Amino acid sequence: MTATGETTTAGNAGIEVPDGYAPHTAQSLPAYLAGIPDVVARLGGFSSDWTVEEVGDGNLNLVFIVRGPTGGLAVKQALPYVRLVGESWPLPLSRAHYEHMALDIQARHAPGLVPEIVHYDAGLALIAMDYLHPHIIMRKGMIDTIEYPGFADAISTFMAKTLFFTSDLAMSAADKKAMIGAFSGNTALCKITEDLIFTEPYRVAENNRWTEPYLDDVAAEFRDDDDLKVAISRLKMKFMGSAEALLHGDLHTGSMMVTPEDTKVIDPEFAFVGPMGFDAGAVIANLLLNYFSQDGHEKTVGDRAAYREWVLAAIEAVWTEFERKFLGLWRDHSSGDGYPASLFETPSGRIRLEVERRAYMDRLFQDTLGFCAAKMIRRILGLAHNIDLEWIEDPRRRAGCELRALRMARMLMVNTSDFRSVTAVTAAARTFRDRVDVP
Amino acid sequence: MTATGETTTAGNAGIEVPDGYAPHTAQSLPAYLAGIPDVVARLGGFSSDWTVEEVGDGNLNLVFIVRGPTGGLAVKQALPYVRLVGESWPLPLSRAHYEHMALDIQARHAPGLVPEIVHYDAGLALIAMDYLHPHIIMRKGMIDTIEYPGFADAISTFMAKTLFFTSDLAMSAADKKAMIGAFSGNTALCKITEDLIFTEPYRVAENNRWTEPYLDDVAAEFRDDDDLKVAISRLKMKFMGSAEALLHGDLHTGSMMVTPEDTKVIDPEFAFVGPMGFDAGAVIANLLLNYFSQDGHEKTVGDRAAYREWVLAAIEAVWTEFERKFLGLWRDHSSGDGYPASLFETPSGRIRLEVERRAYMDRLFQDTLGFCAAKMIRRILGLAHNIDLEWIEDPRRRAGCELRALRMARMLMVNTSDFRSVTAVTAAARTFRDRVDVP
Repeated sequence: MTATGETTTAGNAGIEVPDGYAPHTAQSLPAYLAGIPDVVARLGGFSSDWTVEEVGDGNLNLVFIVRGPTGGLAVKQALPYVRLVGESWPLPLSRAHYEHMALDIQARHAPGLVPEIVHYDAGLALIAMDYLHPHIIMRKGMIDTIEYPGFADAISTFMAKTLFFTSDLAMSAADKKAMIGAFSGNTALCKITEDLIFTEPYRVAENNRWTEPYLDDVAAEFRDDDDLKVAISRLKMKFMGSAEALLHGDLHTGSMMVTPEDTKVIDPEFAFVGPMGFDAGAVIANLLLNYFSQDGHEKTVGDRAAYREWVLAAIEAVWTEFERKFLGLWRDHSSGDGYPASLFETPSGRIRLEVERRAYMDRLFQDTLGFCAAKMIRRILGLAHNIDLEWIEDPRRRAGCELRALRMARMLMVNTSDFRSVTAVTAAARTFRDRVDVP
Repeated sequence: MTATGETTTAGNAGIEVPDGYAPHTAQSLPAYLAGIPDVVARLGGFSSDWTVEEVGDGNLNLVFIVRGPTGGLAVKQALPYVRLVGESWPLPLSRAHYEHMALDIQARHAPGLVPEIVHYDAGLALIAMDYLHPHIIMRKGMIDTIEYPGFADAISTFMAKTLFFTSDLAMSAADKKAMIGAFSGNTALCKITEDLIFTEPYRVAENNRWTEPYLDDVAAEFRDDDDLKVAISRLKMKFMGSAEALLHGDLHTGSMMVTPEDTKVIDPEFAFVGPMGFDAGAVIANLLLNYFSQDGHEKTVGDRAAYREWVLAAIEAVWTEFERKFLGLWRDHSSGDGYPASLFETPSGRIRLEVERRAYMDRLFQDTLGFCAAKMIRRILGLAHNIDLEWIEDPRRRAGCELRALRMARMLMVNTSDFRSVTAVTAAARTFRDRVDVP
């Protein structure tokens, strides 16, 4: 089946693609783009003046940077398979449809925090959008200890607005159900998450890899850890069955294009209506992974101490600001069917509702920590790893960083309710870094 | 919009109906049915031999009983408005589409416990099904103190099978999301629940009614009860955001056609993918309401004591059997993406999973009690009441029964976690009946 329900035809390797779909190349792209007035207006000049560079360093898609005399574009095209793996792992083109829908909704609720869409071609599973320049992938900047003073503010705004405004606190139940229905077909992308995050790291699986031989024991230990496996299974049930808000679905530091002043969130192809804590947990997990990775990048002992503290401060700011902004939106824009204002109109009712709002955020924080832990573990024992850790060349040193992250993640996931504040989390990060013996 | 997305045309009173839709009458129905071979085979003879009786005593639809020489049929047709209220309260015909889909799924998972569909006409929003004879509406039988020895077994099987097999424990995430999408348009029926159960009884609303003047004070007290309003709002959020399994959605004793030997569940037009506890809570709530109503029907003090105990025993059996059967299905048919068996294959893993299954049922029990309480309160302070209580003629006596039920429901909803077993619930029912002073 295709994204848009169009007629399909068997392509190579038995992968079905819609009639008219073909992957572009750097050579074929200019002629196609020259037919699109919005694109021409953006790039300027003639197609012969444009340069095209294929830069896709993600795992799934083709990405072209197109530059013209007056501007640039990023052109992202889905392939009918996982790029990293090849045609043996088919993946539907429909992900471009869901990404486009999500980008559109995110742009409406969090303007300025996602790239602007210049052109969308459903048949080609192709999106042309702002070329973000001089932005870089945040993960890379963090490996180089670049501080991003605007990051916590931007990402907390992105999360607060996109999550709040697509929740039952802001939407009517009917509109929300329509949104759930609209995204309910993005199952192939959800399944990647279900398998790679919530299942495979906890059992023997072909996709798993870790820093051998140093982490062999802990990998085996995790596969035998029944409490951990119950905890990850509860989180998986929540991921599959909790339809709280439209999620980005893959909100790690590799999905953020940043400068010290600006932050843009990209790549929402995993979007679906799920538990809010999954997005918030992804952000915190990737900051924590970077925190634990810094020891592996130090040239002299302690030369990254200040940056480590910046990372922990960012974690605290992300959650604190997210909570503050989400609560503010709830107080001011409570137009949804949840917690109807008409039930809480007396002075005591308003107080009670405010107490409940805090309790709601506490429950969301607990969800966030569980998903955060899941995101940390999968990046060390599962298929897809982070360059924060991967770029530590000495495997023994890398394994030390990873072991500390794993031990903390296990504690977070199994004893979630012992962490009642974000400062409890950052304090624990310091403790695990200080006290876990490494190989 | 129509159920099936067909072209629509404005009908009377601005209500849109699809081309070709018209409500049948007892006069028009035989000629229509005579054109349907399956119907003719069931009824026998010629249409001139058939008798038609309109018996719809529900709130929403037309219901005809058609009898022929060799058999009978119940023919249910949706109207584009709420029958009880009239054209001023439009309600989409699509509910017949969702009812048909739900009946089909229920029949597959719980064969013999729902009426067989003989004919479905989407354009007419009409379903022809088994005429259940000599079944009566269970609620009426319970008012007449008829014991139903097969009931607890049947309804617990219905719930265990329909809920388990449509959950993430039995389905793949992709199939489940497709099911969620398929039912995501049944928003008008969900909204009735959201408004009438989860909102209006807790504020001043035109639809509300109660036994005046005796319950004026408690109705006002509930409208001012901030803890209760937070509790009902949490339940409403769960109703809107928790996509655990395909629910019947209106599983009260008026949706059950029974004989002492047989139980059939009818009328799943409120079906959607929601929290399992909503169905289980509806069953227990309606049994508890009947329990509290029996005092109002006694001719001499204590003449219904034995039936009251039968009702409490039924409550215990319903939950105990539901739990036992659900756990059994989980152990034997765990084919879904939730709690993957491959994570729990060691001896200790199997033990840990079994402990988690019990914990899962405990969490489901807590949900069940919250929804149970919500269902009790709405039947006493909201729009739609139960004949168990309504048929108590003396309003003062009726109010006494209702007050006990309200007090118990409030306790259940606000202090849910203090009730850890179904016997704690039945014991509380006895206590509230014994000790609440009545008007």
